[in-house]
Amino acid sequence: MSDTHPDAAVDGRVAWNADGLVCAVVVDHATSDVLMVAWMDREALRLTLTTRRGTYFSRSRQRLWVKGETSGHTQHVREVRLDCDGDTLLVRVDQTGPACHTGTRSCFDTDERVLLAEGA
Amino acid sequence: MSDTHPDAAVDGRVAWNADGLVCAVVVDHATSDVLMVAWMDREALRLTLTTRRGTYFSRSRQRLWVKGETSGHTQHVREVRLDCDGDTLLVRVDQTGPACHTGTRSCFDTDERVLLAEGA
Repeated sequence: MSDTHPDAAVDGRVAWNADGLVCAVVVDHATSDVLMVAWMDREALRLTLTTRRGTYFSRSRQRLWVKGETSGHTQHVREVRLDCDGDTLLVRVDQTGPACHTGTRSCFDTDERVLLAEGA
Repeated sequence: MSDTHPDAAVDGRVAWNADGLVCAVVVDHATSDVLMVAWMDREALRLTLTTRRGTYFSRSRQRLWVKGETSGHTQHVREVRLDCDGDTLLVRVDQTGPACHTGTRSCFDTDERVLLAEGA
Protein backbone atom coordinates (compact mmCIF):
# COMPACT_ATOMS: atom_id res chain seq x y z
CA MET A 1 0.00 0.00 0.00
CA SER A 2 3.01 2.30 -0.29
CA ASP A 3 1.42 3.86 -3.38
CA THR A 4 -1.69 4.92 -1.45
CA HIS A 5 -1.89 8.58 -0.42
CA PRO A 6 -1.23 8.74 3.33
CA ASP A 7 -4.47 10.56 4.12
CA ALA A 8 -6.48 7.98 2.19
CA ALA A 9 -4.70 5.20 4.07
CA VAL A 10 -5.55 6.79 7.39
CA ASP A 11 -9.02 8.28 6.99
CA GLY A 12 -11.63 6.22 8.74
CA ARG A 13 -9.16 3.54 9.74
CA VAL A 14 -7.45 5.00 12.80
CA ALA A 15 -9.51 5.06 15.98
CA TRP A 16 -8.14 8.25 17.54
CA ASN A 17 -8.73 8.53 21.29
CA ALA A 18 -10.55 11.41 22.98
CA ASP A 19 -7.35 13.50 22.77
CA GLY A 20 -6.96 12.78 19.04
CA LEU A 21 -4.04 10.41 19.62
CA VAL A 22 -3.15 6.84 18.75
CA CYS A 23 -0.67 4.64 20.62
CA ALA A 24 2.50 3.73 18.69
CA VAL A 25 4.58 0.69 19.64
CA VAL A 26 8.03 1.10 18.11
CA VAL A 27 9.96 -2.06 17.27
CA ASP A 28 13.55 -2.58 16.14
CA HIS A 29 13.35 -3.89 12.59
CA ALA A 30 16.46 -6.05 12.96
CA THR A 31 15.78 -7.69 16.33
CA SER A 32 11.98 -7.22 16.79
CA ASP A 33 12.69 -5.81 20.28
CA VAL A 34 10.16 -3.28 21.51
CA LEU A 35 12.15 -0.05 21.78
CA MET A 36 9.62 2.49 23.05
CA VAL A 37 5.95 3.40 23.15
CA ALA A 38 4.82 6.89 22.21
CA TRP A 39 1.75 8.67 20.81
CA MET A 40 0.91 10.17 17.45
CA ASP A 41 -1.69 12.69 16.45
CA ARG A 42 -2.88 12.91 12.87
CA GLU A 43 -0.04 15.19 11.81
CA ALA A 44 2.64 13.06 13.47
CA LEU A 45 1.30 10.01 11.65
CA ARG A 46 1.14 11.88 8.36
CA LEU A 47 4.75 13.01 8.75
CA THR A 48 5.89 9.53 9.78
CA LEU A 49 4.25 8.00 6.71
CA THR A 50 5.54 10.60 4.26
CA THR A 51 9.06 11.21 5.61
CA ARG A 52 9.77 7.76 7.13
CA ARG A 53 11.20 9.59 10.15
CA GLY A 54 9.63 8.56 13.47
CA THR A 55 7.49 11.54 14.50
CA TYR A 56 5.35 11.69 17.65
CA PHE A 57 3.16 13.96 19.74
CA SER A 58 4.40 14.80 23.23
CA ARG A 59 1.50 14.78 25.67
CA SER A 60 3.52 16.65 28.31
CA ARG A 61 4.81 19.33 25.94
CA GLN A 62 1.71 19.28 23.68
CA ARG A 63 3.75 19.44 20.50
CA LEU A 64 5.19 17.28 17.75
CA TRP A 65 8.68 15.89 18.08
CA VAL A 66 10.87 14.05 15.62
CA LYS A 67 12.80 11.25 17.27
CA GLY A 68 16.48 12.23 17.33
CA GLU A 69 15.90 15.92 16.57
CA THR A 70 18.04 16.84 19.58
CA SER A 71 19.81 13.57 20.46
CA GLY A 72 20.68 12.49 16.93
CA HIS A 73 19.18 9.07 17.75
CA THR A 74 16.94 9.01 14.71
CA GLN A 75 14.52 6.38 13.45
CA HIS A 76 14.14 5.35 9.84
CA VAL A 77 10.64 3.89 9.54
CA ARG A 78 10.45 0.62 7.65
CA GLU A 79 6.80 -0.31 8.11
CA VAL A 80 3.64 0.89 9.89
CA ARG A 81 0.74 -1.38 10.75
CA LEU A 82 -2.58 -0.79 12.49
CA ASP A 83 -4.06 -3.27 14.93
CA CYS A 84 -7.43 -5.00 14.59
CA ASP A 85 -9.44 -2.27 16.29
CA GLY A 86 -7.45 0.64 14.85
CA ASP A 87 -6.23 2.20 18.08
CA THR A 88 -2.60 1.06 18.07
CA LEU A 89 0.20 1.36 15.52
CA LEU A 90 3.13 -1.01 15.17
CA VAL A 91 6.08 0.94 13.79
CA ARG A 92 9.15 -0.98 12.63
CA VAL A 93 12.30 1.15 12.54
CA ASP A 94 16.03 1.15 12.01
CA GLN A 95 17.13 2.82 15.25
CA THR A 96 20.32 4.87 15.33
CA GLY A 97 21.85 4.75 18.83
CA PRO A 98 19.79 4.22 21.98
CA ALA A 99 16.02 4.61 21.66
CA CYS A 100 15.56 5.60 25.31
CA HIS A 101 16.30 9.11 26.52
CA THR A 102 18.09 7.52 29.50
CA GLY A 103 20.69 6.09 27.12
CA THR A 104 19.60 2.45 27.16
CA ARG A 105 18.88 0.63 23.93
CA SER A 106 15.16 0.34 24.70
CA CYS A 107 12.90 1.97 27.27
CA PHE A 108 12.44 -1.44 28.92
CA ASP A 109 16.10 -2.26 29.59
CA THR A 110 17.86 -2.44 33.00
CA ASP A 111 16.97 -4.72 35.89
CA GLU A 112 15.13 -2.12 37.97
CA ARG A 113 12.44 -2.03 35.28
CA VAL A 114 11.54 -5.68 35.93
CA LEU A 115 8.23 -6.17 37.78
CA LEU A 116 8.05 -9.93 37.33
CA ALA A 117 11.21 -11.88 36.61
CA GLU A 118 11.42 -14.39 33.82
CA GLY A 119 9.83 -17.68 34.77
CA ALA A 120 9.13 -20.91 32.92
CA MET B 1 12.52 -9.48 41.71
CA SER B 2 10.20 -12.48 41.65
CA ASP B 3 10.51 -12.68 45.45
CA THR B 4 9.20 -9.14 45.89
CA HIS B 5 5.57 -8.79 46.96
CA PRO B 6 3.59 -7.61 43.90
CA ASP B 7 2.15 -4.56 45.64
CA ALA B 8 5.60 -3.47 46.78
CA ALA B 9 6.90 -3.89 43.25
CA VAL B 10 4.11 -1.71 41.88
CA ASP B 11 3.54 1.02 44.47
CA GLY B 12 5.00 4.29 43.37
CA ARG B 13 6.49 2.84 40.20
CA VAL B 14 3.55 2.65 37.80
CA ALA B 15 2.38 5.97 36.36
CA TRP B 16 -1.33 5.22 36.07
CA ASN B 17 -3.19 7.47 33.64
CA ALA B 18 -6.21 9.62 34.54
CA ASP B 19 -8.42 6.52 34.23
CA GLY B 20 -6.18 4.49 36.53
CA LEU B 21 -4.81 2.40 33.66
CA VAL B 22 -1.43 1.51 32.22
CA CYS B 23 -0.75 0.42 28.65
CA ALA B 24 0.43 -3.19 28.23
CA VAL B 25 2.34 -4.30 25.14
CA VAL B 26 2.12 -8.08 24.92
CA VAL B 27 4.97 -9.90 23.19
CA ASP B 28 5.38 -13.54 22.16
CA HIS B 29 8.17 -14.93 24.33
CA ALA B 30 9.41 -17.29 21.63
CA THR B 31 9.42 -14.97 18.61
CA SER B 32 9.42 -11.46 20.18
CA ASP B 33 6.48 -10.55 17.91
CA VAL B 34 4.09 -7.97 19.33
CA LEU B 35 0.82 -9.86 19.74
CA MET B 36 -1.57 -7.25 21.13
CA VAL B 37 -1.84 -4.07 23.15
CA ALA B 38 -4.31 -3.83 26.02
CA TRP B 39 -4.74 -1.97 29.28
CA MET B 40 -4.39 -2.94 32.94
CA ASP B 41 -5.75 -1.36 36.06
CA ARG B 42 -4.13 -2.02 39.40
CA GLU B 43 -6.11 -5.20 40.01
CA ALA B 44 -5.40 -6.57 36.53
CA LEU B 45 -1.68 -6.00 37.06
CA ARG B 46 -1.81 -7.58 40.52
CA LEU B 47 -3.55 -10.65 39.10
CA THR B 48 -1.14 -10.86 36.16
CA LEU B 49 1.86 -10.75 38.51
CA THR B 50 0.48 -13.26 41.00
CA THR B 51 -1.21 -15.77 38.69
CA ARG B 52 1.00 -15.38 35.58
CA ARG B 53 -2.21 -15.35 33.50
CA GLY B 54 -2.56 -12.32 31.22
CA THR B 55 -5.31 -10.21 32.82
CA TYR B 56 -6.51 -6.87 31.49
CA PHE B 57 -9.09 -4.15 31.96
CA SER B 58 -11.63 -3.66 29.18
CA ARG B 59 -12.28 0.04 28.63
CA SER B 60 -15.42 -0.67 26.60
CA ARG B 61 -16.90 -3.14 29.07
CA GLN B 62 -15.33 -1.50 32.15
CA ARG B 63 -14.37 -4.79 33.71
CA LEU B 64 -11.45 -7.17 34.13
CA TRP B 65 -10.93 -9.97 31.64
CA VAL B 66 -8.54 -12.88 31.64
CA LYS B 67 -7.14 -13.55 28.17
CA GLY B 68 -8.59 -16.83 26.94
CA GLU B 69 -11.39 -17.00 29.53
CA THR B 70 -13.91 -17.56 26.72
CA SER B 71 -11.71 -18.39 23.70
CA GLY B 72 -9.30 -20.74 25.45
CA HIS B 73 -6.44 -18.73 23.91
CA THR B 74 -4.67 -18.19 27.20
CA GLN B 75 -1.42 -16.43 27.99
CA HIS B 76 1.19 -17.71 30.42
CA VAL B 77 3.17 -14.66 31.55
CA ARG B 78 6.92 -15.12 31.53
CA GLU B 79 8.09 -11.61 32.38
CA VAL B 80 6.73 -8.10 33.03
CA ARG B 81 8.80 -4.94 32.63
CA LEU B 82 8.01 -1.26 33.10
CA ASP B 83 9.33 1.40 30.75
CA CYS B 84 11.53 4.35 31.72
CA ASP B 85 8.67 6.67 32.63
CA GLY B 86 6.45 4.00 34.18
CA ASP B 87 3.41 4.32 31.93
CA THR B 88 3.86 1.23 29.75
CA LEU B 89 4.31 -2.45 30.55
CA LEU B 90 6.09 -4.99 28.38
CA VAL B 91 4.52 -8.40 29.00
CA ARG B 92 6.26 -11.48 27.57
CA VAL B 93 3.94 -14.47 27.24
CA ASP B 94 3.59 -17.98 25.94
CA GLN B 95 0.49 -17.56 23.78
CA THR B 96 -1.84 -20.50 23.24
CA GLY B 97 -3.57 -20.19 19.84
CA PRO B 98 -4.21 -16.84 18.14
CA ALA B 99 -3.80 -13.72 20.27
CA CYS B 100 -6.25 -11.68 18.19
CA HIS B 101 -10.00 -12.06 18.60
CA THR B 102 -10.24 -12.09 14.78
CA GLY B 103 -8.31 -15.35 14.71
CA THR B 104 -4.95 -14.07 13.49
CA ARG B 105 -1.79 -14.82 15.39
CA SER B 106 -1.30 -11.17 16.33
CA CYS B 107 -3.56 -8.10 16.20
CA PHE B 108 -1.22 -6.63 13.55
CA ASP B 109 -1.40 -9.47 11.01
CA THR B 110 -3.06 -9.38 7.56
CA ASP B 111 -2.24 -7.04 4.69
CA GLU B 112 -5.17 -4.68 5.18
CA ARG B 113 -3.60 -3.57 8.47
CA VAL B 114 -0.54 -2.16 6.67
CA LEU B 115 -0.45 1.67 6.53
CA LEU B 116 3.09 1.93 5.19
CA ALA B 117 4.63 -1.02 3.38
CA GLU B 118 8.06 -2.30 4.18
CA GLY B 119 10.79 -0.17 2.66
CA ALA B 120 14.55 -0.16 2.87
